[in-house]
Amino acid sequence: MIKNIKVNAAILIIGNEILSGRTQDTNTSTLATWLNSLGVKVNEVRVVPDDEKIIIDTLNLLRKTYNYVFTTGGIGPTHDDITAESVSKAFNRKYQIHKEAFKLLEAYYKPGEFNEGRQKMVWMPEGAELILNPTSGAPGFNVDNVFCLPGVPSILKSMLGGLKNKIVGGEPILSHTISLRTVESEIANSLTKVQKQNKDVEIGSYPFFHAGKLGVSIVIRSENQSKIDKCNSQILEFINEKKIELVER
Amino acid sequence: MIKNIKVNAAILIIGNEILSGRTQDTNTSTLATWLNSLGVKVNEVRVVPDDEKIIIDTLNLLRKTYNYVFTTGGIGPTHDDITAESVSKAFNRKYQIHKEAFKLLEAYYKPGEFNEGRQKMVWMPEGAELILNPTSGAPGFNVDNVFCLPGVPSILKSMLGGLKNKIVGGEPILSHTISLRTVESEIANSLTKVQKQNKDVEIGSYPFFHAGKLGVSIVIRSENQSKIDKCNSQILEFINEKKIELVER
Repeated sequence: MIKNIKVNAAILIIGNEILSGRTQDTNTSTLATWLNSLGVKVNEVRVVPDDEKIIIDTLNLLRKTYNYVFTTGGIGPTHDDITAESVSKAFNRKYQIHKEAFKLLEAYYKPGEFNEGRQKMVWMPEGAELILNPTSGAPGFNVDNVFCLPGVPSILKSMLGGLKNKIVGGEPILSHTISLRTVESEIANSLTKVQKQNKDVEIGSYPFFHAGKLGVSIVIRSENQSKIDKCNSQILEFINEKKIELVER
Repeated sequence: MIKNIKVNAAILIIGNEILSGRTQDTNTSTLATWLNSLGVKVNEVRVVPDDEKIIIDTLNLLRKTYNYVFTTGGIGPTHDDITAESVSKAFNRKYQIHKEAFKLLEAYYKPGEFNEGRQKMVWMPEGAELILNPTSGAPGFNVDNVFCLPGVPSILKSMLGGLKNKIVGGEPILSHTISLRTVESEIANSLTKVQKQNKDVEIGSYPFFHAGKLGVSIVIRSENQSKIDKCNSQILEFINEKKIELVER
């Protein structure tokens, strides 16, 4: 692990459909990549069911442990959307109509279409700040360091742009990937030596199978480019000695 | 949540590459779908970094909370593969060469190819039982209720067949999906009524966007087919009244 990254986050995926295997989560990867670019390191992800007590307990733990918590899912209009009410209870805040959100959705829908089901989406914790939704109107929100986003990946993605100014990150985490035509066991010992000589750099080794051929990607991560460069040289040195082929990946 | 399912599990995804966003996890969905078919409900998923203390603490919590724990990742030959040693420490067991695994890999590789790097993959907790790997030789293992599988999705999938007899599930969880050309807010109130009348059935509502059109999938889950059928009729009744179109999905 990179030890000196100061700003961290957890992701809380809320939804039975992920736990049942019916839906493949892709929001973790989207959020983690985006947060990395802002200098925020994701230290933990949890997936929990649509269960109020579990959501409250998990949220209260995560928001006290990490700088930021991002939740996905459960902010729609149906009975299984319980994130906003659970967040209200976790923060001991009233669950009430958010006036600004009400106005936004009233203007967004055609006259007469802002029905009771849709009005559920403007109920939020007292004092919540809105996260605007350019795709489908209904906003997300944040309370302190907890940011609540929808579960639908395309909508979530469209909301990140408007969220950027609310996130204060540390140094962006840089990475460099070296892909090789080899197997992990051929490079394991040499790579261990490089890791031992560069303790504050994170070196990961990931086998892949692509276009019918095996390979390994070595990923070097640090917030310091010169540390990455030093590691990279040491790795290229043993790669060269072993006559291992570099590949595009 | 379905309340009367007795056999449950947690999934522990081990790997910095998931937390950085570099790699999209697909093992959760694979494992959850497979476990469902065996009557095991996944109640929680956590993703943690390659950090020994975090792995040990999380594993000790999960294995005491759930009937089964499945870990993915970290059982390869490189320095960042620390799952087997962490599991040994979590169970207070010796971390040592597994004789049967040694013999398997010695036979699997060509003479002279079973090098030091590869030999790391036969170090396991004392008393571990092997989970055979028909794809790439190196076995996974289980200790008590903790099952350790590799992170590479194709290899993980190939190992599930050999694992089936070790898992004792409850009633398989059945599901039925109704897909509609509508939006959630049109059906939210009616669906809430059906859920209230069928408290021990899990009803989920999931918006989708497919082939340029919006829709909603309603998923009914229970271990009891007649309860699903009853719910299904009630839902079809209001769908019919509202003249909402059913669609294939």
